[in-house]
Amino acid sequence: MNKKFEIGVCYYPEHWPESLWPDDARRMAALGVTYVRIGEFAWSRLEPKRGDLRLEWLERAIDVLHEAGLKVILGTPTATPPKWLVDEMPDMLPVDKEGKVLGFGSRRHYCFSHRGYRSECLRIVETLAERFGNHPAVAGWQTDNEYGCHDTARSWSEESLAAFRHWLSDRYGSVEALNSAWGNVFWSKEYTDIYAIDLPGLAPAEINPAHRMDFYRFSSDQVVEFNRLQCDLLRKLSPGRDIIHNFMGRTLEFDHFAVGADLDISSWDNYPLGFLEDRSDADDDWRRRFARAGDPDFQAFHHDLYRATSGGRWWVMEQQPGPVNWADHNPVPRDGMVRLWTLEAFAHGAEVVSYFRWKQAPFAQEQMHSGLLRPDGVEAEGYFEAKSAIEALQAVDTTANTKADAAIVFDYESAWAWEVQPQGREFDYFRLVFDHYRALRRKGLSIDIVAPDTADLSAYGLVLVPGLFAWSDALVTALCNFEGIALIGPRSGSKTRDFSIPDGLPPDLPKNLADVLVSRVESLRPDCPVSLADGEGAVRFWREFLVTGGSCQAEITAEDGWPVLVHQGRTHYLGGWPDDILLDDIVARLTTLAALPTVDLPEGVRLRRHGDLTFVFNYGDTAADLGALGLDGELIIGGSALPPSGVSVFRQ
Amino acid sequence: MNKKFEIGVCYYPEHWPESLWPDDARRMAALGVTYVRIGEFAWSRLEPKRGDLRLEWLERAIDVLHEAGLKVILGTPTATPPKWLVDEMPDMLPVDKEGKVLGFGSRRHYCFSHRGYRSECLRIVETLAERFGNHPAVAGWQTDNEYGCHDTARSWSEESLAAFRHWLSDRYGSVEALNSAWGNVFWSKEYTDIYAIDLPGLAPAEINPAHRMDFYRFSSDQVVEFNRLQCDLLRKLSPGRDIIHNFMGRTLEFDHFAVGADLDISSWDNYPLGFLEDRSDADDDWRRRFARAGDPDFQAFHHDLYRATSGGRWWVMEQQPGPVNWADHNPVPRDGMVRLWTLEAFAHGAEVVSYFRWKQAPFAQEQMHSGLLRPDGVEAEGYFEAKSAIEALQAVDTTANTKADAAIVFDYESAWAWEVQPQGREFDYFRLVFDHYRALRRKGLSIDIVAPDTADLSAYGLVLVPGLFAWSDALVTALCNFEGIALIGPRSGSKTRDFSIPDGLPPDLPKNLADVLVSRVESLRPDCPVSLADGEGAVRFWREFLVTGGSCQAEITAEDGWPVLVHQGRTHYLGGWPDDILLDDIVARLTTLAALPTVDLPEGVRLRRHGDLTFVFNYGDTAADLGALGLDGELIIGGSALPPSGVSVFRQ
Amino acid sequence: MNKKFEIGVCYYPEHWPESLWPDDARRMAALGVTYVRIGEFAWSRLEPKRGDLRLEWLERAIDVLHEAGLKVILGTPTATPPKWLVDEMPDMLPVDKEGKVLGFGSRRHYCFSHRGYRSECLRIVETLAERFGNHPAVAGWQTDNEYGCHDTARSWSEESLAAFRHWLSDRYGSVEALNSAWGNVFWSKEYTDIYAIDLPGLAPAEINPAHRMDFYRFSSDQVVEFNRLQCDLLRKLSPGRDIIHNFMGRTLEFDHFAVGADLDISSWDNYPLGFLEDRSDADDDWRRRFARAGDPDFQAFHHDLYRATSGGRWWVMEQQPGPVNWADHNPVPRDGMVRLWTLEAFAHGAEVVSYFRWKQAPFAQEQMHSGLLRPDGVEAEGYFEAKSAIEALQAVDTTANTKADAAIVFDYESAWAWEVQPQGREFDYFRLVFDHYRALRRKGLSIDIVAPDTADLSAYGLVLVPGLFAWSDALVTALCNFEGIALIGPRSGSKTRDFSIPDGLPPDLPKNLADVLVSRVESLRPDCPVSLADGEGAVRFWREFLVTGGSCQAEITAEDGWPVLVHQGRTHYLGGWPDDILLDDIVARLTTLAALPTVDLPEGVRLRRHGDLTFVFNYGDTAADLGALGLDGELIIGGSALPPSGVSVFRQ
Repeated sequence: MNKKFEIGVCYYPEHWPESLWPDDARRMAALGVTYVRIGEFAWSRLEPKRGDLRLEWLERAIDVLHEAGLKVILGTPTATPPKWLVDEMPDMLPVDKEGKVLGFGSRRHYCFSHRGYRSECLRIVETLAERFGNHPAVAGWQTDNEYGCHDTARSWSEESLAAFRHWLSDRYGSVEALNSAWGNVFWSKEYTDIYAIDLPGLAPAEINPAHRMDFYRFSSDQVVEFNRLQCDLLRKLSPGRDIIHNFMGRTLEFDHFAVGADLDISSWDNYPLGFLEDRSDADDDWRRRFARAGDPDFQAFHHDLYRATSGGRWWVMEQQPGPVNWADHNPVPRDGMVRLWTLEAFAHGAEVVSYFRWKQAPFAQEQMHSGLLRPDGVEAEGYFEAKSAIEALQAVDTTANTKADAAIVFDYESAWAWEVQPQGREFDYFRLVFDHYRALRRKGLSIDIVAPDTADLSAYGLVLVPGLFAWSDALVTALCNFEGIALIGPRSGSKTRDFSIPDGLPPDLPKNLADVLVSRVESLRPDCPVSLADGEGAVRFWREFLVTGGSCQAEITAEDGWPVLVHQGRTHYLGGWPDDILLDDIVARLTTLAALPTVDLPEGVRLRRHGDLTFVFNYGDTAADLGALGLDGELIIGGSALPPSGVSVFRQ
Repeated sequence: MNKKFEIGVCYYPEHWPESLWPDDARRMAALGVTYVRIGEFAWSRLEPKRGDLRLEWLERAIDVLHEAGLKVILGTPTATPPKWLVDEMPDMLPVDKEGKVLGFGSRRHYCFSHRGYRSECLRIVETLAERFGNHPAVAGWQTDNEYGCHDTARSWSEESLAAFRHWLSDRYGSVEALNSAWGNVFWSKEYTDIYAIDLPGLAPAEINPAHRMDFYRFSSDQVVEFNRLQCDLLRKLSPGRDIIHNFMGRTLEFDHFAVGADLDISSWDNYPLGFLEDRSDADDDWRRRFARAGDPDFQAFHHDLYRATSGGRWWVMEQQPGPVNWADHNPVPRDGMVRLWTLEAFAHGAEVVSYFRWKQAPFAQEQMHSGLLRPDGVEAEGYFEAKSAIEALQAVDTTANTKADAAIVFDYESAWAWEVQPQGREFDYFRLVFDHYRALRRKGLSIDIVAPDTADLSAYGLVLVPGLFAWSDALVTALCNFEGIALIGPRSGSKTRDFSIPDGLPPDLPKNLADVLVSRVESLRPDCPVSLADGEGAVRFWREFLVTGGSCQAEITAEDGWPVLVHQGRTHYLGGWPDDILLDDIVARLTTLAALPTVDLPEGVRLRRHGDLTFVFNYGDTAADLGALGLDGELIIGGSALPPSGVSVFRQ
Repeated sequence: MNKKFEIGVCYYPEHWPESLWPDDARRMAALGVTYVRIGEFAWSRLEPKRGDLRLEWLERAIDVLHEAGLKVILGTPTATPPKWLVDEMPDMLPVDKEGKVLGFGSRRHYCFSHRGYRSECLRIVETLAERFGNHPAVAGWQTDNEYGCHDTARSWSEESLAAFRHWLSDRYGSVEALNSAWGNVFWSKEYTDIYAIDLPGLAPAEINPAHRMDFYRFSSDQVVEFNRLQCDLLRKLSPGRDIIHNFMGRTLEFDHFAVGADLDISSWDNYPLGFLEDRSDADDDWRRRFARAGDPDFQAFHHDLYRATSGGRWWVMEQQPGPVNWADHNPVPRDGMVRLWTLEAFAHGAEVVSYFRWKQAPFAQEQMHSGLLRPDGVEAEGYFEAKSAIEALQAVDTTANTKADAAIVFDYESAWAWEVQPQGREFDYFRLVFDHYRALRRKGLSIDIVAPDTADLSAYGLVLVPGLFAWSDALVTALCNFEGIALIGPRSGSKTRDFSIPDGLPPDLPKNLADVLVSRVESLRPDCPVSLADGEGAVRFWREFLVTGGSCQAEITAEDGWPVLVHQGRTHYLGGWPDDILLDDIVARLTTLAALPTVDLPEGVRLRRHGDLTFVFNYGDTAADLGALGLDGELIIGGSALPPSGVSVFRQ
């Protein structure tokens, strides 16, 4: 394995007799592991009672790992405050929308807004950073663990309410400005004092979308602030170490770009089978077919997303090594898939892939979550898959990351906007963007995900902006200057930042970019798609009625004559949610216009360019002939026949 | 357009710059609008703080409308108490069955029972009525807005509890009488004091149905009282003006006959597409086929219902003009449907059809609800449909309303009774009555809906009494005197008013009317219908085992030999919930007996007689040949070929 | 009817005018009834206010029954504390997991842990036992009614919390021992004081399974204690009377073996149609086909279960006599089914079958629940079915109960364990055991259900131990000594009592019994079964990867080569949840090995051996030819042709 690609594991020395630590460390090193993440849930062992600090065991654990030549990522234990702390300040517990307090007994039992808890977090982080911040084995820090997991980013607590009112006051300055921005004249919702505003909880009917949207923005900002406090302290006390957080999959309740900006490295926790089972929009047939492989695009999407959130540096902090415990069904991965997932992360530019966890714990909540080792210390299947991945990587030279051909704008605020106002039951922002992402992948494109305030798109041949609720000035300027092919819509620019319809109606773009107007919209039952005038595809879920002017003209038209896709020069506007057939058609047109090379990949086969290497992966259950797909070159890993779970890498 | 049929719009001057008002008024008048409803959500603008009354803007708005020749319906703003008022008396907020308080932020956030809030309502109504009650433009008042919408008719608050105990004390006089009436000896539920009785909230098992029934009666009475307070005050301070309330569709939690009795005019808010999507029992295929047209009978049912609730005078106060924002899916109506809905209301006797809303608001909760104008003031599709409807109406002379051929008894208490005790999951009163109503409509009959205490049925050839839980003396007498054909059951007369089984078992009718006894009943899975001895139809959901005596005899029999339909002279009793095939068979038999002229209408085609005119409507998506149906005469509107969304009117 | 089989009814004298009692008693006796259960919900009549005891009416009722020659089972009224008592101690009300108080108004509105309420129960039981405990008509007592019904066995109240902490303190002695046993080091859940531990309520993520498991154990123990208090008092004050409780079907929240150990007789309430509709895992087609008959195995299972819980003596205390009121759908039983259910109970060894209820009440919650008589006192269909059953029983001699051929271990703790940690959505313990039970029944076997601490299995040819979460020493010893055929697994022995994975991995058995190790497991979507190498069957829902050693060898293998069924001599281990085809195959193999006679019964036909009699029952809707099945002998009841709903009994 070259320098670039490294392997890690997650380890819990506190779960095992100290006598086992040296052997565990030795076996990790022997496998080829270089990073070990520890400590992120250990508060009750580090401080069993207030002030009773017990850091010695952790020091011994770090030393043991260090002696085996391993580098340590030390987690701050703030995702699991101990019971004595919760009992001291019970109002730190999160409260759900219905006012129910979520108690102690699992994890993430705190409000991000709670000032007392923030102080406690700084205290324990300071303690750890002072003790271990300059330890030679400590290569980095993980802040907390999986922010927002278990729907914890939003809380309806008293402290949250107080903080929200401050936040509103900062944002609007005066209650008059707020009333105007929110349109509170509607239904007599005008306030006389910002400090009379409640959190958007239960009410007889729908609460003002602008009110909810601001609560979602506020909640995201609280996560950012919470994380930044730790980052600032760690930077000061532990210089030269990377600061990392481990994000989750399809977690949208806070802005990962904003959190990522405070990190050195974004990482994420990659559980392909659990995500397919619990967080997918796919139908049952799809889930059945990929039940042991994972969705062919879900992992790649998040690799590309989190590559963007901290400016390019990213890891997989937790990699599924076998069956997990938390999804509705927890099957065993198909042979080879753990290896495939590992190599795929590197293909997308990961620096490190770290398995969760080294050894399966026989007790407590995750006792059914597999590790590289079984609870009795014997190697489990995941161990051998990791070994095989490590061996395969020996053949890969260090390569520079690749600028992708196409970019998709991804915007957390848009996710909140359409959660607040779906208008049709199926209108989910992630689903919409992911539909577009998948279509690009089916054509073999390598993709960058970019932030909604991106100011320069010049590196790309093709840019997609689906469902962006409101424009940033930077992005509009970038689009105006963009010389590639752009696809905008549906629903992009349909709101102002204040959650109103723009004065000139959507998509609220300069006429010299796109002289098109959305005169009305509708949401559609899934069994009521709108057919096209020509071709098999259809618009589903969401449809817009487009009126064009100037040189903007229809390119694809619905059965009833209304335009579905219009373009003005290189700028295209899509007035509906396309089904896969229509999306494939649109992508084919746009890649042709952009002169991007494409490959029509069989279902389950996906590729990623990495420097001068092309990685090809087979999520499907039938072998693929890469030569027949026009994929060839010097084979580095695998062969031209790509079996199920297979990975081939070649240099072109 | 003749004098009888008038057009209105709902308008919110407070949402728009005052400078736009005159042009809006002018354009309304130019379209043919004569009525404008305003003010019903404007409390925070009329009184931004306690006592700080700001009525001038409203006066200017009324004047502007008046100057354009428009008549004003002024809404009392009591559906949206402002935040300062809620903060003064937070116990006015409604509480749900689980004890959760429903807060400020939307609308209808009050308990009908709250005495403090009732006083505040009278204060603001008095203020408005004193200022505007004799203004020449003010033609009427709307009390509050959509009572009961968002499930707000019932509240489990402390004030509601106190009022419920008073109500029970008034009703029963003594705790012994209440214990006896409710059968509280069962499961040791006997109380020693009426003031120890709780609201029927959460409990480990089912709460006494008599207890729940009385809570539902009480809750309905609270709505009636709340509305009556406003009516009495308005009658005094604004003489000669019509008092109106706008009911909703399929809202059953209060007795609309009782509220309607205090009004001059019943009106309702007619959203055909939203209702089909969110409030229909129809299957997915039906919903898909009529997704852009609305259910062919739902609107007509409510037209006929609300024509009854205030003695004949009724309006459509809010007419859907395009896509709405509140259903699971919000499609665009098929071209022509807004016009069709408008004309259909007049065919059923409406005096006014008023569109909601004049102009789409770009902000707050209903920003995705279309209006006749787009947010930018340009005419939307609904505008042109309204225009077309107005033009068509020019051809229609003033006509007298028509006494219908058939009547169906509709009873809110029965809806509550079967909500309390469905006994089988599908037993919903509205659904049962609506099934019968649809069957009459499929035969082209014009129908009156009549109250459960109707004392005279002599105007009808056919009367249906499905699912009436308990008899009024008036109705039994009316049936005994009735010389037409009557169809009673299923489940009619199966309870006493105290929610017990009658001593002599259902249907609890005089033997000289119907010598039949329901010896036992069963509820059926939807996949377990009971077939008939002859024919295709079946009994579903609910079945009774009938024992007849005297001259009462079986007319239709189940496969197992038990009678399904029996009759004694002109009185028929139906011992089950018929499927549509059986219902069509029964209606065919009864209309023949009653010598009523019928037309077998194609799916989606419906008609309504109005004076000497016959209106025919096509909700379907294929054209109908009216001549082939035997429908002809002097054509007033449309032609003999009735296209989808078409309306034909002819004089016979 | 011989001495052994007796008939009872449930009667509520307090519901009827006293003048009707003598006639009711006379008619009961005339029908052949010998037992009458009364009084179990009558507290508000026995003590309308604190201390105001009114026992005279009950004495008169007992006397009336006594004079008619009837024996009385007197219920303690503790399932329905009256309102005045609840108002005195409102904290006795149960609290659900979300903290919502479940109020007065139905039944079972108390916490088992509440010390004040326990005292009140002892007071009223003492009062009744002193007055009636030696009355010659009183033959037995029923404690309370249907413990755990309506999910009432667990409560999150303050009193429950206090008792839980005591219970934990008793169980673990120290907080260190508890932390270690629960594995609280995981996620920093370590406590510093047992009295700081909360009930497992709401939390952001999953609560420790060991914590939940102990709460479930505690909750079960509270039911046991609650019941024992009454038993001890009744034994003292009413010597010589049987103490009985009436269990429900598929109620798993407390250990019925533990409650049953304090009773003389276990009884249960047998509602075949309601249970099929509301408590079955069967698919819609199965439910439709048996909607009027009930599941062919559900009743038998509970007969066999409750025969075990009190050492052999058992009754049906409430037998469904017609349609009930509480299921989603409540159909009329097919003609003959009430008779069939009655005879089936006796075939399984019941001493008494008692119908619920004598006469349908016309008021309150159960007014739609049929009785043997209609509300007007006329005989309902159930009356005639009971009569027919009683007549048929005349032909049956007293017979000794039969030791069954096969046994299944049933363990309430395992039900809680897999409720806490299903790992796959379908993993329900009852469903797993019932699948196995059904397969034995399809082969015509008579089955005993045995407790998880059974020390002697020598009476059986075949023993099944599916899904037993942890071993008792007694059972392991019994299996080691067992000379019949044993089938163990899936998931048996996969936990320690502390809810951890055993050190040596499952199934945690001595190698000389079964040298097999479960190296990993997976849960499967229902549409992802694992096929076998040979044959039609499959593993579904749950699969284990088995590694064998020594003489343990594979007998059935999956398509991918992993063993599904292994055996070591007579001991078999099953590594997955078999579908019915595979189960039938396994049962065929095992019964052959055990040399047990089997019959391949058609769907819906079931049999039970009772002494030298064989009872055959037809739940299906087509006739069966018993001769063709090889079932013959001296016919006692019925014939060789077994019609739908038929019962045949012959002596072999």
